[in-house]
Amino acid sequence: MIIVMDHLANDEQINAVLARLEKAGFLIHLSAGVERTIIGAIGDKTHLKDMSLEAMPGVEKVVPILQPYKLASRAFHEEGTIIRVGGLEIGGDTVHVIAGPCAVESRDQLLVTAKTVKQAGATLLRGGAFKPRTSPYAFQGLEEEGLKLLAEAREATGLLIVTEVMDVRTLPMVAEYADILQIGARNMQNFFLLREMAKVDKPVLLKRGSSATFEEWLMAAEYIMAGGNYNVILCERGIRSFENYTRNTLDLSAVPVVKHLSHLPVIVDPSHATGRWRFVPAMSKAALAAGADGLIIEVHPNPPEALCDGPQSLTPDNFCSLMSNLKQLAAVLGRKLP
Amino acid sequence: MIIVMDHLANDEQINAVLARLEKAGFLIHLSAGVERTIIGAIGDKTHLKDMSLEAMPGVEKVVPILQPYKLASRAFHEEGTIIRVGGLEIGGDTVHVIAGPCAVESRDQLLVTAKTVKQAGATLLRGGAFKPRTSPYAFQGLEEEGLKLLAEAREATGLLIVTEVMDVRTLPMVAEYADILQIGARNMQNFFLLREMAKVDKPVLLKRGSSATFEEWLMAAEYIMAGGNYNVILCERGIRSFENYTRNTLDLSAVPVVKHLSHLPVIVDPSHATGRWRFVPAMSKAALAAGADGLIIEVHPNPPEALCDGPQSLTPDNFCSLMSNLKQLAAVLGRKLP
Amino acid sequence: MIIVMDHLANDEQINAVLARLEKAGFLIHLSAGVERTIIGAIGDKTHLKDMSLEAMPGVEKVVPILQPYKLASRAFHEEGTIIRVGGLEIGGDTVHVIAGPCAVESRDQLLVTAKTVKQAGATLLRGGAFKPRTSPYAFQGLEEEGLKLLAEAREATGLLIVTEVMDVRTLPMVAEYADILQIGARNMQNFFLLREMAKVDKPVLLKRGSSATFEEWLMAAEYIMAGGNYNVILCERGIRSFENYTRNTLDLSAVPVVKHLSHLPVIVDPSHATGRWRFVPAMSKAALAAGADGLIIEVHPNPPEALCDGPQSLTPDNFCSLMSNLKQLAAVLGRKLP
Amino acid sequence: MIIVMDHLANDEQINAVLARLEKAGFLIHLSAGVERTIIGAIGDKTHLKDMSLEAMPGVEKVVPILQPYKLASRAFHEEGTIIRVGGLEIGGDTVHVIAGPCAVESRDQLLVTAKTVKQAGATLLRGGAFKPRTSPYAFQGLEEEGLKLLAEAREATGLLIVTEVMDVRTLPMVAEYADILQIGARNMQNFFLLREMAKVDKPVLLKRGSSATFEEWLMAAEYIMAGGNYNVILCERGIRSFENYTRNTLDLSAVPVVKHLSHLPVIVDPSHATGRWRFVPAMSKAALAAGADGLIIEVHPNPPEALCDGPQSLTPDNFCSLMSNLKQLAAVLGRKLP
Repeated sequence: MIIVMDHLANDEQINAVLARLEKAGFLIHLSAGVERTIIGAIGDKTHLKDMSLEAMPGVEKVVPILQPYKLASRAFHEEGTIIRVGGLEIGGDTVHVIAGPCAVESRDQLLVTAKTVKQAGATLLRGGAFKPRTSPYAFQGLEEEGLKLLAEAREATGLLIVTEVMDVRTLPMVAEYADILQIGARNMQNFFLLREMAKVDKPVLLKRGSSATFEEWLMAAEYIMAGGNYNVILCERGIRSFENYTRNTLDLSAVPVVKHLSHLPVIVDPSHATGRWRFVPAMSKAALAAGADGLIIEVHPNPPEALCDGPQSLTPDNFCSLMSNLKQLAAVLGRKLP
Repeated sequence: MIIVMDHLANDEQINAVLARLEKAGFLIHLSAGVERTIIGAIGDKTHLKDMSLEAMPGVEKVVPILQPYKLASRAFHEEGTIIRVGGLEIGGDTVHVIAGPCAVESRDQLLVTAKTVKQAGATLLRGGAFKPRTSPYAFQGLEEEGLKLLAEAREATGLLIVTEVMDVRTLPMVAEYADILQIGARNMQNFFLLREMAKVDKPVLLKRGSSATFEEWLMAAEYIMAGGNYNVILCERGIRSFENYTRNTLDLSAVPVVKHLSHLPVIVDPSHATGRWRFVPAMSKAALAAGADGLIIEVHPNPPEALCDGPQSLTPDNFCSLMSNLKQLAAVLGRKLP
Repeated sequence: MIIVMDHLANDEQINAVLARLEKAGFLIHLSAGVERTIIGAIGDKTHLKDMSLEAMPGVEKVVPILQPYKLASRAFHEEGTIIRVGGLEIGGDTVHVIAGPCAVESRDQLLVTAKTVKQAGATLLRGGAFKPRTSPYAFQGLEEEGLKLLAEAREATGLLIVTEVMDVRTLPMVAEYADILQIGARNMQNFFLLREMAKVDKPVLLKRGSSATFEEWLMAAEYIMAGGNYNVILCERGIRSFENYTRNTLDLSAVPVVKHLSHLPVIVDPSHATGRWRFVPAMSKAALAAGADGLIIEVHPNPPEALCDGPQSLTPDNFCSLMSNLKQLAAVLGRKLP
Repeated sequence: MIIVMDHLANDEQINAVLARLEKAGFLIHLSAGVERTIIGAIGDKTHLKDMSLEAMPGVEKVVPILQPYKLASRAFHEEGTIIRVGGLEIGGDTVHVIAGPCAVESRDQLLVTAKTVKQAGATLLRGGAFKPRTSPYAFQGLEEEGLKLLAEAREATGLLIVTEVMDVRTLPMVAEYADILQIGARNMQNFFLLREMAKVDKPVLLKRGSSATFEEWLMAAEYIMAGGNYNVILCERGIRSFENYTRNTLDLSAVPVVKHLSHLPVIVDPSHATGRWRFVPAMSKAALAAGADGLIIEVHPNPPEALCDGPQSLTPDNFCSLMSNLKQLAAVLGRKLP
């Protein structure tokens, strides 16, 4: 890290910083310029956060230089990580599509959707059983009954199940039914929950928080990995910007950037990102072209009757037509759909 | 709400929307303009979220008109709410200052700080016992030992205790020791946790999420109130913007705006907002002038040695000097400090 | 538009608003609900901005319903607009790539680049002659000499010239040399300049301002169109968000959204959006897959020696390889490169 | 600056960077760590922007350490700058209030407003003569007639005139009538205009762009100062965030931060920031308490009839009452109103 001293900092203040860094075992480069003194400190970056150097008199600012994550970094694992689950490989040549309704609403709704998306080429089924919503007055999910329906749909179709874990108490129950555990955008920095995910023997689909930087997102992955679970799949789902015609602003540069910084697979959720079914096909294709390892897409047999997120759900017809486009596209991109 | 039809929407599509709204019990105003048809629907707004009208063919967009929160709204309770806790009134003429360290680090650190801030005029003591951090490698808090030290500091000084609840499992333990339970910015939309807060018989200090709109923040308060706990204190602590010289962007307009929209007390956290002790006094005074009902300020006996957030902590001296300024300021604003 | 009255608004205040609207010729729908009164006003939306209804006592807020732009809207011109310039059609089946250096630096630099990008399949050449920069101490462009070099490069290669107009004084000079006039992101709401663009008989490439909404961007196009110049090409080049690993956040949803709202062609600038050459190929492919009508890409014969924006410039080799990928991709998307 | 090499960078790549820096005259600190090589380069920072080091193979990123502005920095001029104009001192103990309508609409409107605000304690009159608006269909200003009315109001009241310059062509005309020339938020990075402002012998009121960082804002001031005009007053007027209940998000931390980084006076515009008259008094008081050297407030004799920005204009009564509050407040802050 670099410590930039104030232009008025005196020798005593500079020496106090140097003494503190030396005591902490850092190797030091001192550069006493005409305008101001700058101190380079080299050492174990995991201690920096606890040093509060900016609170010392005469310190103008501290500039970190290295990434704070280790296990999640590309430097730690040069090859892209492939996550194996139920016979599928996520992060390899094959692009996987996770499809299904926002919320599990009924046996009928779920099974019809599952069969449709399976036939169209999806390999995983999504569906929320716990759905606490922005409004306390809205539909809140079928809970364990929803999980059972997901398991039934897996039986019927062979699709693997991806569903969200909302809190530590229900984690064991969800883990019993799901193949991949999703951490939603709002829980990306729920560190208590992340610690528990580290102990589960299932892959985690970690959504980017709606105002999380790439670094914060990778630090959340680091939390899970540091605890022992290396099977983390990252999911870009749009960030909050000033533009609100779309529900969020899909940051597709996340795909090449995070694949450059990290070895973990990256998938994209165009449904939550745009919030409008009309724009989902274009953004699905764009995500694939940007290099995404997969997509998670909301599909509902009758979107206007959906209890949750109908406006962003594709009809089965629109989904099938999109899948057929994605197959052609994957071919020229050196990828394939199953 | 207003449903704006696409300019190419045909009669069949318009009639389908009308039929759906009528069936749901809405009163309808139809305005068939030259350019496009617009439908006004009046009725119970709590059902709207579940209607997915934007998924119907021919619908361009749905514009909500009324606020989705009820109990938190100023219309529900014309007078400003005063929250009574341990002999204090929050939301009345008296401005309360909550002060203390980011994290409880040791008996000594906490008691010294508590005595200092008490003497300077603070009425409540802050201090985190559970501190899961952005990095899994940083100090994570003293947990129950920290809570015990907080209780001891209350004994010694008479200050009430404000401390953060991080998850549902530790809530009962925290509630045993604290006078006011804080929900941090990252948990503002942790709906499982909010539901539990509704059942606790203690006031809740609800921080604004770093990318939460005023409406989302008030909806989070609504969650707690809808479950039966009406003692919610709102806390503005800065939002995420493109500017990162400051840790967050303190949105002081939150004070008059939220007090216009809601009857709940609003306090301000200038420490997390700016992230730098140097700017805390100016923003504390500004918050008071904007009409805040209180402040929550980080104070540490020796900021450079703080295990957490030292750069934004005031020294005891700086805090005392600020309190003396705030007292004078309150007088000309028609408020007072205790 | 909808006027939402305060819940405490009295009859006198409501009547004053009604009287004002009636006098201005609006058709009115009054909805006096239990909680509050809501007024719908139908009429010429171009007058609304001048009415300041929110300044009237008892008015809580005014919610506009219709788009404020007319000529730029899809409703005005159902078919997508094709802009014809120098034998090229922009907005049709063919995707055009504009390539070249950020700034014209020398005859050699420009001609080498022009020949390379021409051979690789570009049809237009970019290059800045006026380059006022964030710092007053940086290279500011070759001015008219740069324009002459651009014209020479057109002679030599047949590429059309796209270059930026920075102010009204130099507009006639730039218009003499260029085939398409670019309005940069910082000038998107320079209304004096937009008015002049309306009078020029050349197509305008209008970049989105870095914090402009879709609506503001289309209103800027409306300015040019309202003055008589209908040949506007829109260019998404990234917006400012909290994420600063990339120079801007490329908002690719702009492509399908703006093509839904408007009939104008939309192209994408992945170079300014990402700010790093490494991510330009992925985002170029993504833009094409999202439906862009063209791309504008920075290419420099020796990026580390570039006087401007070297970090985001492709080498000739990387550009050729990208163009070959784009050709294959266009084929499966139902588009083609020239 | 610090050059961080990729973890895979080889010796040849590192040596190429070193050679380039040495040739450019930089002093170098090399730190070849286990994980990656880091290069510190010390020298003339004005050259860095032109070096495009990030385009060199093996370079991961370049981290600038020093501020890019010099003349605008506090280090250049330790004491706060006081700007003297027409007998007033801006930046000293006295807080000045600039008040008046958004746009000059008529002789009557302007003179009535001028007399009112003068009597209430304002020392400067604002009013726009050139008003190109977001919509080409809205009122665009009285132009030179407006400037003449402003001069007449100055005659009648003794108030100094602050009005906006929109482009280089009308600058001489505006400079003839105005005492202080305003650069609006949209022109903050109109470098052609900034260069001209450098040559005018009048103080410049430089508004912060709605998505400009503190550094970019100070670089815009540097443009004007580098050309010879040191009389720059900075004006915070709100930034664009995701929150759109208010027109902009007033970033009051700009006041202490910019006064820490720079010696220039800083004033605040609560009218454009909030966009709603109701919140202007609270934010005016907050700005004063944060340390602002002045305020610019919109006042209109009859806001609902204003041709521009009525919703954010105070009535004369509300303005007088605010001024009386500000006077009391200034006293306890160690400032005074005239």
